[in-house]
Amino acid sequence: MPTLHPSDPSGSLVQRLSLEPTASGPLDGLTFTVKDNIDLAGLKTSYGNPAWRDFHPAPNHNALCVDALLAAGGRCVGKAIADEFTYSLQGENPWFGTPLNHRAPDRIPGGSSSGSAASVANGVADFSLGTDSGGSIRVPASFCGIWGMRPSLHRISEAGVLPFMPSVSTVGVVSNRFEHLDKVVRTLLSGDEQSPSPLKRVFVLADAMDICDDAVQSQAEKALVDLFEPTGIKPEPIRLAQIVGEDLSLRDCNERTLRPLQTLEFQNTLGSWIEYHKPETGLGFSMAYENVRQSDRLGILDCRSRRERIFDAMRAWLTPGTVICFPSTPMVAPLKGTLETREAARDFYDRTMAITAFAGIGRLPEISAPLLSASGCPVGLSIAAGNQQDESLLCVLGQLLG
Amino acid sequence: MPTLHPSDPSGSLVQRLSLEPTASGPLDGLTFTVKDNIDLAGLKTSYGNPAWRDFHPAPNHNALCVDALLAAGGRCVGKAIADEFTYSLQGENPWFGTPLNHRAPDRIPGGSSSGSAASVANGVADFSLGTDSGGSIRVPASFCGIWGMRPSLHRISEAGVLPFMPSVSTVGVVSNRFEHLDKVVRTLLSGDEQSPSPLKRVFVLADAMDICDDAVQSQAEKALVDLFEPTGIKPEPIRLAQIVGEDLSLRDCNERTLRPLQTLEFQNTLGSWIEYHKPETGLGFSMAYENVRQSDRLGILDCRSRRERIFDAMRAWLTPGTVICFPSTPMVAPLKGTLETREAARDFYDRTMAITAFAGIGRLPEISAPLLSASGCPVGLSIAAGNQQDESLLCVLGQLLG
Repeated sequence: MPTLHPSDPSGSLVQRLSLEPTASGPLDGLTFTVKDNIDLAGLKTSYGNPAWRDFHPAPNHNALCVDALLAAGGRCVGKAIADEFTYSLQGENPWFGTPLNHRAPDRIPGGSSSGSAASVANGVADFSLGTDSGGSIRVPASFCGIWGMRPSLHRISEAGVLPFMPSVSTVGVVSNRFEHLDKVVRTLLSGDEQSPSPLKRVFVLADAMDICDDAVQSQAEKALVDLFEPTGIKPEPIRLAQIVGEDLSLRDCNERTLRPLQTLEFQNTLGSWIEYHKPETGLGFSMAYENVRQSDRLGILDCRSRRERIFDAMRAWLTPGTVICFPSTPMVAPLKGTLETREAARDFYDRTMAITAFAGIGRLPEISAPLLSASGCPVGLSIAAGNQQDESLLCVLGQLLG
Repeated sequence: MPTLHPSDPSGSLVQRLSLEPTASGPLDGLTFTVKDNIDLAGLKTSYGNPAWRDFHPAPNHNALCVDALLAAGGRCVGKAIADEFTYSLQGENPWFGTPLNHRAPDRIPGGSSSGSAASVANGVADFSLGTDSGGSIRVPASFCGIWGMRPSLHRISEAGVLPFMPSVSTVGVVSNRFEHLDKVVRTLLSGDEQSPSPLKRVFVLADAMDICDDAVQSQAEKALVDLFEPTGIKPEPIRLAQIVGEDLSLRDCNERTLRPLQTLEFQNTLGSWIEYHKPETGLGFSMAYENVRQSDRLGILDCRSRRERIFDAMRAWLTPGTVICFPSTPMVAPLKGTLETREAARDFYDRTMAITAFAGIGRLPEISAPLLSASGCPVGLSIAAGNQQDESLLCVLGQLLG
């Protein structure tokens, strides 16, 4: 059993605790928190919902990724708030609260790894384990002004992580410092270091730029020039249609391909439990779940082949040494209380997920770097590489940061 | 709700039923059964254990793979028996019975997809959906004399399939005819047809041959010559040590790498439920679970990097156009009642899983072809290709069979 402490003033934790390292290693001296959909032995995992927490027994074992961090010298200091059933990008949990966005206190932190991002941004821990299906690491990293990485699909073990959307969901990491992100992700990827490919080409995803707020777009253009200037490589704009070889928009990638599949997988993994036990849920989840309930399951099956076709095209195109850049989110964190109308929520989700779906469909590693700001608030700049090129992507970032 | 019928005389089904196709397609006219760890809407999924079945609500939706088959014209005719918690290779379920091994009635059918294999071998259905972590499709396919394919890891959707070992478990197919296997797997792989690579090199895994019973080994040698003779390509023996570039045995791949990881993942996915609810289980599962409970969790973490190192070596080596062959199991199906001593069970599992671990670690597609027999009983000959080369492997088999 971990030692328990009172919660933290940033409101990012469900529970403060102390789990000592089991061995010494590259993470010696670093502290971390764990999103509340990842098992810690002896503590109930809530999945962001009290009814789920109360119904399920506490796990007997840490998730494999947690054991790996403890064995590398990390110390776990808390269980971090997740959005309800991790099915939101906002970071406002009706039961556990809204973690503080340290850099923009009147704005939402982003979710669903809200507590992970806030615990890092507020100095509660050096890094945090989160999960990402439709942006749940990248969005809060972008909004809170920290580093976040969603690795290639299945590169970090999902054993002991609650199943969500098996063909999309990944375990990933947020951190205040790239140096820590790099060490932690390499610990978790668990493969031998692949010989990294030197940077050859840099693309900018023009479709993503188009749907960003003007201030984010102009900041991103400037930051990209500065970032890659020392390499002598000039970022080239590219459109999804050029990559895929057919007329296709980012919005289509999300709304007609990835998001319906996520809905269908969510029905399989959580739908039966929810329908049977009818847990009390907040308004945000209830509205989102109503869409899940009404989705046309058989009509969605075609999305599988569309996704694979786009995936194959992206894989052929994102060869070793190629990276592609775009703002992690099209806007800074919305002010609290501004997503409560259906129209505002739809604009927020449709534009944000159009961007996050790119790496989702491509099963790409993507790093959100805290390099932009607009209206005084942070925004992430994402750099993505081809599927499985996680180590090369980390190397590229390491070189760019000197 | 599906229509329910009395069970079948082959003892392969938990429940006979009829789920009509939702559309017309390449599987028109074909019938299938579904292993009892894969969801069918409105029917409880037992996972081979009555306590699990009674505790969990019936799912509201079919697994995605089931919906895909129904939408391609297939008709589902039954829920097939699985070994208890799918944690066995024997096919003897203490609660639901031992499905009939049609070709060798006094022998076990093999498991854990025992009912899937038996329902196909006994003519109850044209094909069946199963799952495979440590051989659970390949072993019963080999013992029952039918075709079986374990695809590359994660190539068939796991949505609606009970989580078992997330880094090893796959959904796959068994069938009486290669032609049906080919159609069904292509429906489920859901990607576009990749342009298949022509066959260039054929290897025989000498380490696997070494641990086979003599009759199986000599049968396999002869069958391989016959099978590849028309292609003009001569099978070349190769050892794991040559592939990996270090002194490593197949037994090490299993006992010091894959099997400990499977144990650790099993602790994460099922351990807490079992420890908390203490379901009544049969003797076989109880003995196996005692090993799970006693495993040294932290000591196992190193297996992750060993597995990735072997995986990388196998990927570099199994290039497009290369296949590798070996008997699917080192022996024919054991006679019922002969695995009851600890020594007999150990020999059976250690030798069998040493062979099945090869594709497990390599995340390879592997097809068990019903081409061998010894002592009048069937044994499978496996042909495996590199990770993700599922379509090419199907093409090679199609060409070999004319």
